[in-house]
Amino acid sequence: MFERLCIIGIGLIGSSVARAARKQGLCKKIDAYGREQDLANLQLAKRLNVIDDYFIDIAPAVESADCIVIATPVGAVEPVFKLLRPYWNKDAVYTDVCSTKGSVVKAATTVFGRVPTNFIPAHPIAGAECSGVDAGRADLFDNKRLIITPVEDSNVQALDKVTRFWEGLGSTVSLMEVDHHDTVLAATSHLPHILAFALVDLLGRKDEQVEIFKYAAGGFKDFSRIASSDPTMWLDICMANKQEIIPLIQQLQSELHRIQQMLEQGENQRLFETFTYAREARQRFLDQLEK
Amino acid sequence: MFERLCIIGIGLIGSSVARAARKQGLCKKIDAYGREQDLANLQLAKRLNVIDDYFIDIAPAVESADCIVIATPVGAVEPVFKLLRPYWNKDAVYTDVCSTKGSVVKAATTVFGRVPTNFIPAHPIAGAECSGVDAGRADLFDNKRLIITPVEDSNVQALDKVTRFWEGLGSTVSLMEVDHHDTVLAATSHLPHILAFALVDLLGRKDEQVEIFKYAAGGFKDFSRIASSDPTMWLDICMANKQEIIPLIQQLQSELHRIQQMLEQGENQRLFETFTYAREARQRFLDQLEK
Repeated sequence: MFERLCIIGIGLIGSSVARAARKQGLCKKIDAYGREQDLANLQLAKRLNVIDDYFIDIAPAVESADCIVIATPVGAVEPVFKLLRPYWNKDAVYTDVCSTKGSVVKAATTVFGRVPTNFIPAHPIAGAECSGVDAGRADLFDNKRLIITPVEDSNVQALDKVTRFWEGLGSTVSLMEVDHHDTVLAATSHLPHILAFALVDLLGRKDEQVEIFKYAAGGFKDFSRIASSDPTMWLDICMANKQEIIPLIQQLQSELHRIQQMLEQGENQRLFETFTYAREARQRFLDQLEK
Repeated sequence: MFERLCIIGIGLIGSSVARAARKQGLCKKIDAYGREQDLANLQLAKRLNVIDDYFIDIAPAVESADCIVIATPVGAVEPVFKLLRPYWNKDAVYTDVCSTKGSVVKAATTVFGRVPTNFIPAHPIAGAECSGVDAGRADLFDNKRLIITPVEDSNVQALDKVTRFWEGLGSTVSLMEVDHHDTVLAATSHLPHILAFALVDLLGRKDEQVEIFKYAAGGFKDFSRIASSDPTMWLDICMANKQEIIPLIQQLQSELHRIQQMLEQGENQRLFETFTYAREARQRFLDQLEK
């Protein structure tokens, strides 16, 4: 149990960490740090009793905190590390929530020369297309996977504390290497988001010419849900992990081209096999989800 | 109100028509026709009281029926027209539920030399990724759009009866030209299905090499839902409407290539604009859905 939890960035994820930590009694006091332009959001967080106090100065925000969670967009991590550097506390533990881990490790290396041994990178596989402190939920991490990507010289006690913290919030924790995390997430999360944005961009332009959305149904609603995700956050993620994402976009273009050819050449059997394989693969995914 | 409704093909949609028609009191008797290999399904439909009787001979199935609904996959429509031809009843009305309308009109023209004036093509924009008589629901069409694509010499009384029948089942009916229907649905339904199949095919193959599905979350679940759709049905639809679908697949490849280039060249602003446009376009779609 921590004495004082400090959350840097109190949006959807940060406020869910705060809510879950309070509900599970994982810390005595919960504070948040934000920038001056985040003041309204910080005030709302306090009014909602999600946090006890907020700070727009970093020094009082982190002094005496024994657990610091960085819950900003990917692109803000390096500036946050710079802010934290003068006050870095070797007796505290630090973790983050970013969807790309290579970029976080790189930012830490840039700022500190190496990844501080008491900073344990983490990524909760949980989220929603909504954002903001009021969108947070105490059960956001319940039975959701969380990937921790320790580096070679991560401190074992810090790793243990951070693991137990995330487990206490409800997550099922897996350990993974940084690069492997970014490869896997590019496929299961980043590519689908890009695809949803690409499709809705294309169809939105058609809809402006001739009404088509009027005749779209439930399938399209579900399929396009992730295209409602926050553009700033996703720009950050896509740029941070583009080395992994670009080859996948190319592979998907080839896959679409292959299907196009099957249609052109009337290759019913091959197209049927492709659809059938995909259906079975999705069933395999659903079976895993239930485990 | 009809005396006797006959449903050709009692799967998800056919059985939903039967359930809704019974619930709304739109006909006195509901029968179904199926092939010999559909016997178990027909028996189940009767046991569930979805239909009153079933037939595997077409003559007794349709004689004395004053409304005949063809609820088979797209590819079975031409054989069904051939079966119906000797017993075609000019005093009855006929409709169908196929997702492609050009192919249905073409099948009718092949079999009858022209579209019979009392056959009114229809497409309920409602469905689910599940299938079979037991998946049917009486409320499947409630507040869902249904597109009727009359042809030039469609009989006005038949059009009126069929429109009122579908409205009675809960649908909001729109009239549209055959070609326009196929263009619109290629974009809002057929392309998203192909895309979901393509993505899950690609990722399924990766998952066989290195576990990735284990780390996929809710976003992927929704995005991939339509990849669980029936492969036979979707093979039929895609082949039947490939003239409309192929150009869209090409446009999507270009769109993905455009995004790939933005990533490669670090064009943050353009990528942000693309994501933002997509998010706003989806909001426009959601707003329409609520109307």
